[in-house]
Amino acid sequence: MADLVSPLAPARFPDLPPVAGVAFHVFNTGLRYKGRSDLLVARFQPGTTAAGVFTRSLTRSAPVDWCRQALAEGEGQARLLVVNAGNANAFTGRRGVETVARTVAAGAQVFDCPASQVFLASTGTIGVALDDSRLTALFPQAAADAGPGAGWEEAARAIMTTDTFPKGATRTVPLDGVPVTVCGIAKGSGMIAPDMATMLAYVVTDAALPAPVLDALLREGVEDSFNAITVDSDTSTSDTLMLFATGQAPHAPVSDAGDPRLAGFREALFAVLTDLAQQVVKDGEGATRFVTVRVSGARTNQAARRIAFAIANSPLVKTAVAGADANWGRIVMAVGKSGEEADRDLLQVRVGGHLIAANGEAVPDYDEAPVAAHMQGRDILIEVDLGLDQGEARVWTCDLTHRYIDINADYRT
Amino acid sequence: MADLVSPLAPARFPDLPPVAGVAFHVFNTGLRYKGRSDLLVARFQPGTTAAGVFTRSLTRSAPVDWCRQALAEGEGQARLLVVNAGNANAFTGRRGVETVARTVAAGAQVFDCPASQVFLASTGTIGVALDDSRLTALFPQAAADAGPGAGWEEAARAIMTTDTFPKGATRTVPLDGVPVTVCGIAKGSGMIAPDMATMLAYVVTDAALPAPVLDALLREGVEDSFNAITVDSDTSTSDTLMLFATGQAPHAPVSDAGDPRLAGFREALFAVLTDLAQQVVKDGEGATRFVTVRVSGARTNQAARRIAFAIANSPLVKTAVAGADANWGRIVMAVGKSGEEADRDLLQVRVGGHLIAANGEAVPDYDEAPVAAHMQGRDILIEVDLGLDQGEARVWTCDLTHRYIDINADYRT
Repeated sequence: MADLVSPLAPARFPDLPPVAGVAFHVFNTGLRYKGRSDLLVARFQPGTTAAGVFTRSLTRSAPVDWCRQALAEGEGQARLLVVNAGNANAFTGRRGVETVARTVAAGAQVFDCPASQVFLASTGTIGVALDDSRLTALFPQAAADAGPGAGWEEAARAIMTTDTFPKGATRTVPLDGVPVTVCGIAKGSGMIAPDMATMLAYVVTDAALPAPVLDALLREGVEDSFNAITVDSDTSTSDTLMLFATGQAPHAPVSDAGDPRLAGFREALFAVLTDLAQQVVKDGEGATRFVTVRVSGARTNQAARRIAFAIANSPLVKTAVAGADANWGRIVMAVGKSGEEADRDLLQVRVGGHLIAANGEAVPDYDEAPVAAHMQGRDILIEVDLGLDQGEARVWTCDLTHRYIDINADYRT
Repeated sequence: MADLVSPLAPARFPDLPPVAGVAFHVFNTGLRYKGRSDLLVARFQPGTTAAGVFTRSLTRSAPVDWCRQALAEGEGQARLLVVNAGNANAFTGRRGVETVARTVAAGAQVFDCPASQVFLASTGTIGVALDDSRLTALFPQAAADAGPGAGWEEAARAIMTTDTFPKGATRTVPLDGVPVTVCGIAKGSGMIAPDMATMLAYVVTDAALPAPVLDALLREGVEDSFNAITVDSDTSTSDTLMLFATGQAPHAPVSDAGDPRLAGFREALFAVLTDLAQQVVKDGEGATRFVTVRVSGARTNQAARRIAFAIANSPLVKTAVAGADANWGRIVMAVGKSGEEADRDLLQVRVGGHLIAANGEAVPDYDEAPVAAHMQGRDILIEVDLGLDQGEARVWTCDLTHRYIDINADYRT
């Protein structure tokens, strides 16, 4: 079972070009995984800026607490990122905090930078003490490595836990006439699998952007990418998305996130974020179909989003999709439970672009054949028009299958 | 598969005594089910009072809309209740509203009462027009039946859809020195199965209570019974809970819900409501374990309830229970995602009464044997103490198993 690859996985890892100003090193710590890398050390050139968004969980892990603190104290400067897979260092009490402190101190010393420029993430089993010496013992080796380092795919593989495929995405666009590259990797199968916490994503660009600009772009971009996906509505203790800008591209300075010269870059960044987020859904536990839920005609965009998530998180909708059943009754039910304004008699429901319910009832004699054919596919489109106003939203999810139960009912045993 | 009875079902239907002032009649309409009753007609003596609470869904069914309207217009007087199983008359547009109007008019005429004293519910498939003539054609036969009518178990069976067992509960207590009886029936397997909408529950007492008193008692009682259960977080278009008081018991008048003479009655009513609500969970689709989630030490009772539901609705917690895995990491995750105040390092988690996590980490060397034995049982107890304040809550749910997927992925096909 562990060898299965999601049927929604891309055919292969995409070609990600190197990004000037960052070097990757990967290692096996011996902590949990054999025969694969489980530690990623990323070194950034001086002057690299950083921004991050993190889990809203109130029981978040010690590494997340540290990253938030470091970003604030260091004003978004970054020299080092350390990510280990196999142990999440979450719910490890006082010892978890001490583990983080020792790892940061070792990183700052070995790589000769302020502690506030060292970022960490740990993903894997919750509640087991992490032996940080297994990580820090490898730092000198990384520091001494003057070669080109590991590639993006190796980096992506080093942070995997229950993922069935490595996730990467890239775009290159001109910024002020100079080509800049955006590359990213992610891990996470399921919005979350708290035993094997976490959704992690790291995006690096060679653009030269001040930390406040990065932060604004990231917060804007996350809304319609990582904040628009759900597998099972559960939220990890460790979810982390960080964006680094090495500043190696020789474009003129940009000091405002609203600068029109950033239009292409913004689009490229958002495309990378969306691509990575969708890959996380496509590696959702047991997923066999990728589902796009579009809601329009709501009172506000916020209302549309809540309705879209009510549909996307409904176990009854997700099991219907698993069964290739265009079950609009469950979609209507999910709209009703969202708590947002809806008028039963104004709703329109489309599946695969085909109108199947309107005027408060099923469309009389709609042609079921193309709808049934659509439901047999890998990419499912559910559209709901509330018919009230202009609010709209789009979210992505996957179906709920037997394998989700297999994976999660049997994981620890 | 359809013949399986939930492993959580009681050994048999309890002995429910007749309640003076109500008579049941059951019929087969021929609409959907063969070889069983699918229509319940309940006639109440003049003077019967009524109260109801209904789904908060904004896409609720026409019968629900009617019941709310009738209770308001008729000031809580009831003479007739008509419930059919097999067709929910939900999302049936204008025709659904007309169906309700015709059924109410026929009931009022045949049973000689105001329309506002006729209550309806329909449960079953969504989105299919209901032929109300199949119901109303049987009204004269019910009206002509001067016998004792059907019993509680027959009534409970007539309203079943995907239920695997009929649900009933009763208590008898003195009210002002006079014995009064509270009997109730319910249907629903899953908090909801919107194709086969709905959770329905009807409770009848021979107590003599004004409608406002009934209403206050019902609203109070529903909070820790039907509003404290969840199977899959989904909410039906048709959920209905009604309470009728026939006034046949010869106790002195009670005009205030806070009257101390109601203490015993309140307790009996709440016990019946809780018993019925728990039976609905025990018939949850695919349920193999009944789960009680208790949260204490929260900032407020409301916060405790939200945390309890975050745990009870978490697919990861529910699959862990299915796998007999005392997975406290997932419980901590669910607390974190609830959005309510929690301190990772103050949390205590108990399973089966055994403390397994505290001080922000697993209890070192706790004895796993009794916890594992508890998780193998039918009744699972999960307790979380936030350690912050006095807020507490208790909710009930069931595990998430392969059969839930079987039932819901394959239902219509």
